[in-house]
Amino acid sequence: MYYGGIEAGGTKFVCAVGNEQVNIIEKVSIPTTTPTETLNQVFHFFEKYALKSIGIGSFGPIDLNEKSPTFGYLTTTPRKGWENFNLLGAFKERYTMPISLTTDVNAAAYGEYIRGYKGSIDSCLYLTVGTGIGGGFIKHGDIVQGYGHPEMGHILIQKHPKDHYPVCCAFHPNCLEGMASGSSMEERYNKKAYEFDRDSEVWELEAHYLAQAIVNYTLIVRPDKIILGGGVMKQEQLFPLIREEFKVLMGDFVETPFLEEYIVGPKLGDNAGIVGCLTLASELV
Amino acid sequence: MYYGGIEAGGTKFVCAVGNEQVNIIEKVSIPTTTPTETLNQVFHFFEKYALKSIGIGSFGPIDLNEKSPTFGYLTTTPRKGWENFNLLGAFKERYTMPISLTTDVNAAAYGEYIRGYKGSIDSCLYLTVGTGIGGGFIKHGDIVQGYGHPEMGHILIQKHPKDHYPVCCAFHPNCLEGMASGSSMEERYNKKAYEFDRDSEVWELEAHYLAQAIVNYTLIVRPDKIILGGGVMKQEQLFPLIREEFKVLMGDFVETPFLEEYIVGPKLGDNAGIVGCLTLASELV
Repeated sequence: MYYGGIEAGGTKFVCAVGNEQVNIIEKVSIPTTTPTETLNQVFHFFEKYALKSIGIGSFGPIDLNEKSPTFGYLTTTPRKGWENFNLLGAFKERYTMPISLTTDVNAAAYGEYIRGYKGSIDSCLYLTVGTGIGGGFIKHGDIVQGYGHPEMGHILIQKHPKDHYPVCCAFHPNCLEGMASGSSMEERYNKKAYEFDRDSEVWELEAHYLAQAIVNYTLIVRPDKIILGGGVMKQEQLFPLIREEFKVLMGDFVETPFLEEYIVGPKLGDNAGIVGCLTLASELV
Repeated sequence: MYYGGIEAGGTKFVCAVGNEQVNIIEKVSIPTTTPTETLNQVFHFFEKYALKSIGIGSFGPIDLNEKSPTFGYLTTTPRKGWENFNLLGAFKERYTMPISLTTDVNAAAYGEYIRGYKGSIDSCLYLTVGTGIGGGFIKHGDIVQGYGHPEMGHILIQKHPKDHYPVCCAFHPNCLEGMASGSSMEERYNKKAYEFDRDSEVWELEAHYLAQAIVNYTLIVRPDKIILGGGVMKQEQLFPLIREEFKVLMGDFVETPFLEEYIVGPKLGDNAGIVGCLTLASELV
C-alpha cells in the first residue's frame, strides 16, 4: 500500500511516496515552472506506484472552502503563471483516488504534530521562514482554519525605530513577511540572507521581528510548541536571539513552556511538510 | 432545574440563575471589593435556589491548567487583594455540585457561539474592549486554549506615527490594551472614553488600533465572526471606523465575510458573558 505526498512550493514541488508506515521510500524535487510542465513531471514520477491516495500541501493563498466555486484554486499568488490555477482540479482530472488538499505549512504543522511529536503535545504552531513566511496551527489534532487558511506571515507588527529599510509587501504597510522573509531580506539589504555573517546585525533585527510575531501567536492561541522551519531558519544563531527577544517583549506576562523547548526547529527537519502530506494521504483510506 | 452563572469581573460580579432552557430568571450585580466580602454576597444570592451546577467566567490571568497546583487561582491580576486568590477553591469549598471555570471572555465567546448564533457559524472570536482588553476564540464548539488561556488584548501592534501619548501597559512596550482599553484611554488622554465627542479624533486612533489587532486575529485564526463587546464598544461610531480601517490595513489580501457581518457587536448584548457561564453550567449535568 503506497501513499503519495506533494509539497507544492513556489520554487519546487517535492513529491514522495510513502509505505504503509508512512515512511518515505522515494522522494524527488521538481522545479516549479509552468503548471503544465511541472505537473507532467509530478504525474510521471508517481506512474510506477499504485497509490491509494494523495495528500497535497500547497503554497498559497489557495481556496480551501469546499463550498466555493473556486475550491482548490490558487488565488492571488505572486507566482507568475499560477494565479487562479485550479491545482486540485488538475489532480482530480488525472486521478480517481482520494486526494486531500491543504497548505504547505498546515501540512508541515500536521507532520510535526502527528509524526514528530506523536501525540506528546496538545497543540503546535509551525512557521516557515523562507522565501515567504507562513504558518499553520494544530490543536487536538485538528488543522485550525475557518474562512480560509491562516496567513500568519502577514500579521502587522511594529517596525523597529532603527530600521530604515523598506517594507517589502505589496499588501501591507508593516507586515512580518515584508520585513523578515528571505526575499524581503534580500530586497531590503541587497544581499541574500545566507551571505550575512553569523554575527551580523541583520540577525538581531530578524530575531526582533520573529519574536514580535511569536509573542502575538502565543497570546492568541497559546500553543504548546512554536516550530520554526524554512530556509532562513537554517541560520541557527537565530534561535537563541529569538528566545531572548521573546522574553524581553513578553515581559513575563504569561507562562510558556521552557523557552528552549518552546521555540524550536522542526523534529522532522526539511521533511516536515512532505511527511505531513503523506500522513494526510494515509488518513484518507 | 436551575443553573448558576457567575461573570467574575474586576469591577463587578454578575450572578445569574438560569432555568432548564438556560434562560435567565434572576440576575444581580455585586461590586468587586475583597474576595471574602464579594463571595459572601455571591453565595447569599444563590442560597434560595437548588442549583444543579455552576459556570464561572472570570477575569484573569487565571490558571486553567487542571494539572497545575494553582489550578483555579487568579495569578498576576492587577486587581488588588485578588492576586494569587484561589477563586475555584473558594467555590469548591462552599459547593459540592459540578463547577466549570473559564475566562470571562471565553464564556462570552461561548455564549455568542452557542446561544447567540445557535450553530449557524463554525467559529467566532469575541473581544471585549472595556477597562481592559481580552478575547476568546471558539472553533467547532471548542474553546481554543492551550498552555493557559489567550491574552489577546496584549498583542503587540504598531503605534501610530501621529500618536505621541504614552502606552499604558506595565508589561509591554506597544500592546493593544496599553493603547486602546478604556483605562488606557483615560490615562493617555486624561479624560474618560465616554466623555469624548462622537466625532473626536481619539476614535480614529482607537479604530486604527482595534483594526490592526483584528487584521492579526483574522490572519492567524480566520474566524467567521469578530464580535466586539465591552464598555468602549458602546461607542457605536467605532464599528464603521474599524471596518474602514480594517479594509485599508488588510489590503484585500485575504477574503473575509462581508465586513458589516464580520465585525459586529454581540447578539446577546451585555448578557454574552453571563449566558455563556450558564451554558457552560448546563453542559455539566
